[in-house]
Amino acid sequence: MPYKITFYPNRKTVDAKEGQSILKAAGSHGIHINATCGGKGNCGKCRVVVKEGNVTTKQSGFLTEKDLAEGVRLACMTKAASDITVEIPLGSQMRRGGKIATGSKLDELQKIAGKTCDGEFRPVTRKLFLKLPHPDLDDNISDVERLKRELGKRGYEMADIHINLPIIRKIGKVMRAKGFMVTVTLLMVGNVIEVMDVQAGDTTRPRYGAAVDVGTTSLVVYVVDLLTGKVLDMASTYNPQVRCGEDVISRIVYASEMGGLDELQRLVIDAVNGLIEDIARRREIDPETIDNLVVSGNTTMIHLFYGIDPASIREEPYIPTATFLPLMRTRALGLNINDFGVIYAVPGVASYVGGDISAGILASRLYKRQELSLFIDVGTNGEIVLGNSDWMVTAACSAGPAFEGGGVKFGMRAMDGAIEKVAIDPETHEAKYSVIGHVPPIGICGSGMIDLIAEMFLTGVIDQRGKINLDAGTPRARQGESGPEYVLAWADETGTDKDISFTEPDVDNIIRTKGAIYAGFSTLLKEVGFTFADVEKVYIAGGFGNYLDIERAITIGLLPDLPIERFEFLGNTSIMGAYMALMSRNLRKDVEEIARKMTYMELSVSHAFMDQYISALFLPHTNAEAFPTVERMRKVAAGQSPP
Amino acid sequence: MPYKITFYPNRKTVDAKEGQSILKAAGSHGIHINATCGGKGNCGKCRVVVKEGNVTTKQSGFLTEKDLAEGVRLACMTKAASDITVEIPLGSQMRRGGKIATGSKLDELQKIAGKTCDGEFRPVTRKLFLKLPHPDLDDNISDVERLKRELGKRGYEMADIHINLPIIRKIGKVMRAKGFMVTVTLLMVGNVIEVMDVQAGDTTRPRYGAAVDVGTTSLVVYVVDLLTGKVLDMASTYNPQVRCGEDVISRIVYASEMGGLDELQRLVIDAVNGLIEDIARRREIDPETIDNLVVSGNTTMIHLFYGIDPASIREEPYIPTATFLPLMRTRALGLNINDFGVIYAVPGVASYVGGDISAGILASRLYKRQELSLFIDVGTNGEIVLGNSDWMVTAACSAGPAFEGGGVKFGMRAMDGAIEKVAIDPETHEAKYSVIGHVPPIGICGSGMIDLIAEMFLTGVIDQRGKINLDAGTPRARQGESGPEYVLAWADETGTDKDISFTEPDVDNIIRTKGAIYAGFSTLLKEVGFTFADVEKVYIAGGFGNYLDIERAITIGLLPDLPIERFEFLGNTSIMGAYMALMSRNLRKDVEEIARKMTYMELSVSHAFMDQYISALFLPHTNAEAFPTVERMRKVAAGQSPP
Repeated sequence: MPYKITFYPNRKTVDAKEGQSILKAAGSHGIHINATCGGKGNCGKCRVVVKEGNVTTKQSGFLTEKDLAEGVRLACMTKAASDITVEIPLGSQMRRGGKIATGSKLDELQKIAGKTCDGEFRPVTRKLFLKLPHPDLDDNISDVERLKRELGKRGYEMADIHINLPIIRKIGKVMRAKGFMVTVTLLMVGNVIEVMDVQAGDTTRPRYGAAVDVGTTSLVVYVVDLLTGKVLDMASTYNPQVRCGEDVISRIVYASEMGGLDELQRLVIDAVNGLIEDIARRREIDPETIDNLVVSGNTTMIHLFYGIDPASIREEPYIPTATFLPLMRTRALGLNINDFGVIYAVPGVASYVGGDISAGILASRLYKRQELSLFIDVGTNGEIVLGNSDWMVTAACSAGPAFEGGGVKFGMRAMDGAIEKVAIDPETHEAKYSVIGHVPPIGICGSGMIDLIAEMFLTGVIDQRGKINLDAGTPRARQGESGPEYVLAWADETGTDKDISFTEPDVDNIIRTKGAIYAGFSTLLKEVGFTFADVEKVYIAGGFGNYLDIERAITIGLLPDLPIERFEFLGNTSIMGAYMALMSRNLRKDVEEIARKMTYMELSVSHAFMDQYISALFLPHTNAEAFPTVERMRKVAAGQSPP
Repeated sequence: MPYKITFYPNRKTVDAKEGQSILKAAGSHGIHINATCGGKGNCGKCRVVVKEGNVTTKQSGFLTEKDLAEGVRLACMTKAASDITVEIPLGSQMRRGGKIATGSKLDELQKIAGKTCDGEFRPVTRKLFLKLPHPDLDDNISDVERLKRELGKRGYEMADIHINLPIIRKIGKVMRAKGFMVTVTLLMVGNVIEVMDVQAGDTTRPRYGAAVDVGTTSLVVYVVDLLTGKVLDMASTYNPQVRCGEDVISRIVYASEMGGLDELQRLVIDAVNGLIEDIARRREIDPETIDNLVVSGNTTMIHLFYGIDPASIREEPYIPTATFLPLMRTRALGLNINDFGVIYAVPGVASYVGGDISAGILASRLYKRQELSLFIDVGTNGEIVLGNSDWMVTAACSAGPAFEGGGVKFGMRAMDGAIEKVAIDPETHEAKYSVIGHVPPIGICGSGMIDLIAEMFLTGVIDQRGKINLDAGTPRARQGESGPEYVLAWADETGTDKDISFTEPDVDNIIRTKGAIYAGFSTLLKEVGFTFADVEKVYIAGGFGNYLDIERAITIGLLPDLPIERFEFLGNTSIMGAYMALMSRNLRKDVEEIARKMTYMELSVSHAFMDQYISALFLPHTNAEAFPTVERMRKVAAGQSPP
């Protein structure tokens, strides 16, 4: 028998299917609850409070006696046994929209977008309005041949024109609807010209396209005027696949071993449809006028988007099924735009360097420049590219999700309630912080963690190996439940009634993450015979980049100690590259060339990488000479004047 | 409430849907009842006898008082009002198989088939067995790129290789199923190479294809071994669309004005699936091993087969939607062969000269020869082609369905019970005849009609204008219900208890039909400045040709008076051409060239044709000099010795 579950603060009542967990019931009605592990009971993040009614639940080490007494349960482990009322605490909520990608306003987007294409707007499909001669007994070729002949007159090679059955089925009626005046949509791929659609009358305008960034964590959609290149609007949301697993590996397991491939595909397609609908409604455009879509994402996300089993991606030797996907009808994927619309996926390089990175290189213009540059995209993984217009090498650093909150006790994404900036008084070791959304803090996000560790390091709260100094002379540095920790916010300041602290294992986690990324840089440079001094530009991509304090990132040894002016924040280059490939078929060729040209290095089996990694497991690094600026800062912080 | 209808002699009981006519109920359960008009009550051929139960019916001028008293009703106008038992009389039965296309035995087929391809077997798809190198960390390109690379090594241009999503979705599993040994099916069109399928292990054999002739009246399927060209087996049946209308025009009306397009498509596709299944079962092959299909038929049949609205075909200026159709997946049409199989339609020329005629020209080799030839295919319409290796002109004669039984009182198709040969004693004017199936006659088929009219003409039973001589001195020439008629078989000899007679309107109908065909020949010849004497070869195609007596056809002026040795029967050239296009991609190019090269003449608006037609409305022709042989025969028949 199905029970009703009422969720607060959403005030939404849903029917739970028999045997369905609260997490599943919420998810299938669009109510998101955090679940880093995908609902397997391993992360303890999907805490909910059962306010009314009976439930059945499983024991979990994540819940204390006090939690249980207060009605706190893990949503993934708990099922309704009557109609129930459930509260989702702030810390378990994932709200649509949130902070992700709202940083850029439309006019900024517009400026960036226009610049990236050099104003060269030539989408891969073209619309032509044709007045065909009426047939008569002396000119009685078939409707299809009549159209081909007209295209032939306009310089298209008739033998190369393909018209598929769905178009043939409607062409007779369409031609006669408005006196043989029609608008054709042509797709040019190589020397083949495909007639994608035929419509009655002049429908050459308006025409829209959509660029889609499918991130592991979030989805972003731009809807773009294909005639002017103007970004009409954008929308974003969390990737609803998160409830099946937070990182790519757990989604691969969910898809391949738990039979969830179709579900994962449906989740992301539905969400993208929803974003497009939102924009269409808001801007009062007909989704039918959107006939072109470009999607960019990491290799696993693209496999899931297209419904391709990603199993082999996580098995050595880490082979993806495809890095290049064929141009195809959006309809075949269930996307609700023009019935004859086409979708293109930005091509990737390897299992762990996907189309989002190719798009990033396209957007950064690294591939057009003579100067040696580094490109880094820190998300759930850290992907890096080193190169110039002649060559490029790339690698993935398996950095782990620490900067997104994974494996860190109070870690969370950059959303309302997250501490994003931290300063520690060098004398008192008291902490000051600022919180996204100006609400009481509930956790700490990536940029906050970098600030925190840098500050702890510079003020001597932690040493080079990340050990917390319990004798620092502040009650904040204390022995906690799981060893030494530093209290960033006291319970009465927070939104959770608990002290927000940062533990030694948390510090360790961040050091391993930054170590992996820095070791990736070093390994690639060594491999091609260069040093950091030769790097003239460091491009930082990803939503993460918007909040990163470069100096602090250098302090902990995440970024190399180079002059600040060599660093450039690019924002979300995945969507930017998708936009560029949408607007210009020449840039589409460029990005294919980029994907083919990049040499992938598998770091996970590289001895050189392991050596570099071990050297980087210090703050900022075992080789202090590589970080002269940090040395100087430490001396200043320690009261020694600079030389 | 649905009633049960039990049909005899089929002994089959079916559920009739509410309001469904007996004709519809029979048809939807595979029981065929003749209905020339498609079930509109206009032809009076769907007579059934209600043996038990109650029915509701409409009045019809086709039924006499005696008919009604005996329980005879028109199946299209009658509905069950209780459970009923119905007998389908012999004259209303259309049996599967019948005489159609069973004339050729398999070894004959084989001989003809082999000859037509010159043993050059290169189907449009090719299967290759590949042993791919196993991936490792140093060779970690994607599965798709691995396959492309291997094909590249074998000389295929990698940039031209297309792999679609359904193949990509399965390629990962398929590659790993048998240690990276796979069989790929490649399709080459122009310079594009499409990977149609990937299967685990070596599946290069067996491999089959199917050639399909979709006639207005009948369907024929050959299943062919693609590796050897051997015709494995054939099967044929009536085109079940017949119950929606006998000729192309009534089917176009049914499709376009009565919303029956989907039904017509489903009927023919289901029937073709049935024939393929029959052969697969009989020969114990897996339909999955059939991966290539070629279909040939007139333009309307091909429109219906592909689900394209044929409306404009029957409206001046008679424009088909398409004469060339794209190569596509059989799955998209619901054909049950290999899931990744492809279908090709032999291209046509115009609304009334279809792919069956292009296939005929391919099979006849007319297009390869210097000598001037005529090609004629007499079915429901008469299509003719005049030309040689340099040029070809073609036309359709709107001959009408008289030779197939339409518009002739006792006309019927060439099946059991049809009188197919006739001789009239010049003295007594008594008739002798032979009947297909050696059963009592129930009607007369095309070849019988030609014999009969020729004999009546030579023995003076009719004159040059087709008027029956009631003073011929035989009770067979008499005044009937609808004017003068000649009794071919007396009631007690027949299977219907009625005299089988041939009336003046019947004769008139045949004269108009043969006149239209002969006028077509003359008009084309005149148009290009030749005469019959220049014609070195006359190819006669169509099932009809198998029974035609050339001399008798010349006698009535259907065929020109040329030496017998210039005529050649080719049988069903539509299926032969389909077979050739199946087995050889060069011949596929040839037939496309044929379709492009043929110049179509619209005779229905030609004054020259009208003049020729009026001159041909005599036996054999107003210009007796054009038929010297006939003149000689008449003199012999009249007792005058030859000069």
